[in-house]
Amino acid sequence: MNPYQAPLKEMQFLLEDVFDAPNTWQQLPELAEMVDIDTANAILDEASKISRDLIHPLNRSGDEQGVIHQDDNVITPDGFKEVYNQFSEGGWAGLCGDAAFGGMGMPKMLGILVDEMNYSACNSFTLYGSLTAGAALCINAHANEELKQTYLPKLYSGEWSGAMDMTEPHAGSDLRGIRTKAVPLDDGSYAITGNKIFITGGDHDLTENVIHLVLAKLPDSNGISLFLVPKIRVHSDGSLGEANGVTVGSIEHKMGLKASATCVMNYDSAKGFLVGEPDRGLVCMFTMMNYERLAIGIQGLGSAQAAYQMASDYAKDRLQGVQAGKKPGSESDPIIVHGDVRRMLLTIRAMTEAGRALSVYTGKQLDLAKYAQGDVQAKAAKYVGLLTPVSKAFLTDRGLDATIMAQQVFGGHGYIRETGIEQLVRDTRIAQIYEGTNGIQAIDFLGRKVTGDNLATLTQFVDETLTELEALNVSAEHKYAVSSRFNALLASAQFVNDNKLTQPALINATAVDFLDAFGYTLYGFYWLLMADKSSNNVDTDFSHQKQYLAEFYIQKILAKADYHLSQVNNGDSSIMQVPESMF
Amino acid sequence: MNPYQAPLKEMQFLLEDVFDAPNTWQQLPELAEMVDIDTANAILDEASKISRDLIHPLNRSGDEQGVIHQDDNVITPDGFKEVYNQFSEGGWAGLCGDAAFGGMGMPKMLGILVDEMNYSACNSFTLYGSLTAGAALCINAHANEELKQTYLPKLYSGEWSGAMDMTEPHAGSDLRGIRTKAVPLDDGSYAITGNKIFITGGDHDLTENVIHLVLAKLPDSNGISLFLVPKIRVHSDGSLGEANGVTVGSIEHKMGLKASATCVMNYDSAKGFLVGEPDRGLVCMFTMMNYERLAIGIQGLGSAQAAYQMASDYAKDRLQGVQAGKKPGSESDPIIVHGDVRRMLLTIRAMTEAGRALSVYTGKQLDLAKYAQGDVQAKAAKYVGLLTPVSKAFLTDRGLDATIMAQQVFGGHGYIRETGIEQLVRDTRIAQIYEGTNGIQAIDFLGRKVTGDNLATLTQFVDETLTELEALNVSAEHKYAVSSRFNALLASAQFVNDNKLTQPALINATAVDFLDAFGYTLYGFYWLLMADKSSNNVDTDFSHQKQYLAEFYIQKILAKADYHLSQVNNGDSSIMQVPESMF
Repeated sequence: MNPYQAPLKEMQFLLEDVFDAPNTWQQLPELAEMVDIDTANAILDEASKISRDLIHPLNRSGDEQGVIHQDDNVITPDGFKEVYNQFSEGGWAGLCGDAAFGGMGMPKMLGILVDEMNYSACNSFTLYGSLTAGAALCINAHANEELKQTYLPKLYSGEWSGAMDMTEPHAGSDLRGIRTKAVPLDDGSYAITGNKIFITGGDHDLTENVIHLVLAKLPDSNGISLFLVPKIRVHSDGSLGEANGVTVGSIEHKMGLKASATCVMNYDSAKGFLVGEPDRGLVCMFTMMNYERLAIGIQGLGSAQAAYQMASDYAKDRLQGVQAGKKPGSESDPIIVHGDVRRMLLTIRAMTEAGRALSVYTGKQLDLAKYAQGDVQAKAAKYVGLLTPVSKAFLTDRGLDATIMAQQVFGGHGYIRETGIEQLVRDTRIAQIYEGTNGIQAIDFLGRKVTGDNLATLTQFVDETLTELEALNVSAEHKYAVSSRFNALLASAQFVNDNKLTQPALINATAVDFLDAFGYTLYGFYWLLMADKSSNNVDTDFSHQKQYLAEFYIQKILAKADYHLSQVNNGDSSIMQVPESMF
Repeated sequence: MNPYQAPLKEMQFLLEDVFDAPNTWQQLPELAEMVDIDTANAILDEASKISRDLIHPLNRSGDEQGVIHQDDNVITPDGFKEVYNQFSEGGWAGLCGDAAFGGMGMPKMLGILVDEMNYSACNSFTLYGSLTAGAALCINAHANEELKQTYLPKLYSGEWSGAMDMTEPHAGSDLRGIRTKAVPLDDGSYAITGNKIFITGGDHDLTENVIHLVLAKLPDSNGISLFLVPKIRVHSDGSLGEANGVTVGSIEHKMGLKASATCVMNYDSAKGFLVGEPDRGLVCMFTMMNYERLAIGIQGLGSAQAAYQMASDYAKDRLQGVQAGKKPGSESDPIIVHGDVRRMLLTIRAMTEAGRALSVYTGKQLDLAKYAQGDVQAKAAKYVGLLTPVSKAFLTDRGLDATIMAQQVFGGHGYIRETGIEQLVRDTRIAQIYEGTNGIQAIDFLGRKVTGDNLATLTQFVDETLTELEALNVSAEHKYAVSSRFNALLASAQFVNDNKLTQPALINATAVDFLDAFGYTLYGFYWLLMADKSSNNVDTDFSHQKQYLAEFYIQKILAKADYHLSQVNNGDSSIMQVPESMF
């Protein structure tokens, strides 16, 4: 198996040429003093080495060995601890963290590319850091100064890690039913008691402490509050004290992600600290959740990129069959000559590069929402809301597609564990499920983000996109292929909005198809944008690649949007009229 | 986890009402004396119990335990041997076998339903018998009388099992490069020497002998011949002799199918017997291969059905969220009330029931090709050729879709091994790959079966289908939805046929989309056929179910055919113009 090699050139192209990071950063004073494009490129270069040389070598052995739960300890596979230490010492755990508390203060549109590399290299390893960064973000946004001072520096340094504790056996997608309790103590802290399941990185041996963000209910309240609960108590001087009543009940045995500890956590009067206002825990947790949703989208993207590299290497190497049109009996050709193999590779490639564009664009909006002012900030915040569920769901759904297609390129060898491609399928499958299933994402998108403001944000986004599209130096035919679908999408959204009150199930029943239609259409725009932005590239090979892929996408993939929209337009009657007894 | 329960009513409906088994069998003298609909129903009933009570209980433990290779022995998981013995003693190994050699002589359109039950119950277990039945079919069709007398009764009784030995490390999809040699011996047999990989059921402890059908080359020939090579030599009186130089090098560690032994086989001057003519081995092997291709289609179908049952049971049981339109704060509802969950379940159900129709129809054509005379026989043989690659590829591709969708219904629990649904995803994934990848199937379909006779068979099939469609008692709108797509499909086939010489990659590059378009369109016909045939069913619930599902299919799924056809119509230029260096 070839080592993973980050697509640096693609990444730099998106940052610099497509989404204009240099100007964006220059206009945001807090970022301008932290980063310029040279710094960013140096960071990408260094991250590329770390993903290839440190993280990727853990991937296969981590899958075979898995996490072990032994004598109350959760033990990660060989090498994980050493690499995590090196990773942390390099400052990567706090790459986008607040500089005021020891983070590196890098922009998200850069950090997201580093995340992609790490997910490509090893899904399981990268999750630990992703949860840590999300927990820090949430603490920084909602906790009091004392908590921030105590916990953020250790999280950014990677000495401690973070976890998100929401799900309980009877409360997953619907958190109303959680039973974990928080009883106020005299010192202003709370005694937390209850059980949580599916806690990624809930315990492990990578760090000396794990900082849990736990949803629980205050006495006599049905509201949900958020608490910071360390595994080991922390003295006021920052040193570690005694155990805090946080224990691991068991770890899950899963389809994949075997080197990621998925824990059942038990809280027995564990000392916790309120984060944000009482009964406002879900709002606070959403800061972390939205962070993780985007991160998990990147998991899907990273898996797709890794799958592409493996499959294209194999296809150039594996001799089997003869190119169509050559004399029968000729020497065998590498399978890359076959149209169907190319179709699969081009599909993965086209979806992955457009997916990276979506991720960088979303990262840019996150940066603008955080660092810009006024209208720019407000618009970016709305776009983050609009695009977060799309990034999570569409990147992970297409991520699974990509890994399965790549596995198909390998033929029988793709089903054998040692080849490694089947692991990518297993590892990335969860990304469609956790942090809110992709069905939940779609309902958030169509129900809250699109129809929730009567299409105002969507219309603004589409109008802006169509204006940009119009200005691109690409064929009118290609522009129409994309613009007509955006207009059809708006019409479908209007149809849902007009009927959402009289047909209460309409949103739920059509949301997944609507999100898919949006994703395929938006990728059409990104391809034309990339074709335009690369057209003057000094590297003419690079430029040609983008033209070829844009052509392939428009010809071969974009029409999927039509199918999905037709499902939206056909409404919910054929779904909802079926009596429950029939299932 | 609920035990698997065969969908008997659906199966009987297809046999009796949709594809008119009673009349079909009555008109075929060899079948008429073996089977009537009462016998068939009794067999289905008994098979249902065996699949539920004997085979299904092996499924999870078999996955956890896996096959072990120890001291030259391949050991199947606990219980496999006992159940295999019971299964064999019941005559199931020879269900459709030739009665002249101890088989039960049952029609394939019945046997295929039994196969589905067994695959639903346990993919791994069922493969052993499937390979055995295929090997027997091949021996019966091509071997001499002595070989038939010696081997068939023991294969039909299940005392011995069969294996298909084709692939070598450098020869998979393209068998020209095989290196296994067959040297003639004085007694008319051959000494076989070489190595084969990916041999399903190549060795195991279920039976006392394994009968390999091995592709090898005669000295000074580049042609490929077929040899019967027993693991243990067989004396002329049928008793077992010494070992035959057939050994297991290793077993593969796979993504799934862990209870199925996938072996590297070594042949060291093993005694083999020529089957069929020298250098005509591929033609003979295709008898087995086509059998297995259909069987593997049924693996996909069986997995889809099992996945549906698990997911619908879960969806009716799992309380989460509130039905759209109900007062917020209401008690949680089972998730089956949610439109998106219903969409997923209805999609699986609609695809699976139509898939079963395809499988029974194909089985019927196999029976007609075997037992009928004259034009009826000739036409059926052509339809078998046309539909075998479709059944293999479309049933397995949709089988994976179904298991993934069902896993999604489970949310986080779907990713946990003990839930069992993730095993179905892993087990059924291989079905898209082995027995010829689905890309190979599609190229066989479009290249050989459709354009190979300049659309003659396809046109005949479509004309016949449209005539049947016209006579159905369903809405004109629904008829048009299907007929217009059949006509579009013929036009696309014509486009490919017209350009196949000047664009040599066209077939390879568009075959998968063409096969998918055909599958989705054909399923549209099957749904209208089932709606019609159920309309007078005394069980009005059953009748209503079919009307609901037909409506759902036409509204929500059928349009996928348009997307796939548009890819065919857009040709191969965007795929083939890309230089190899770009990948």
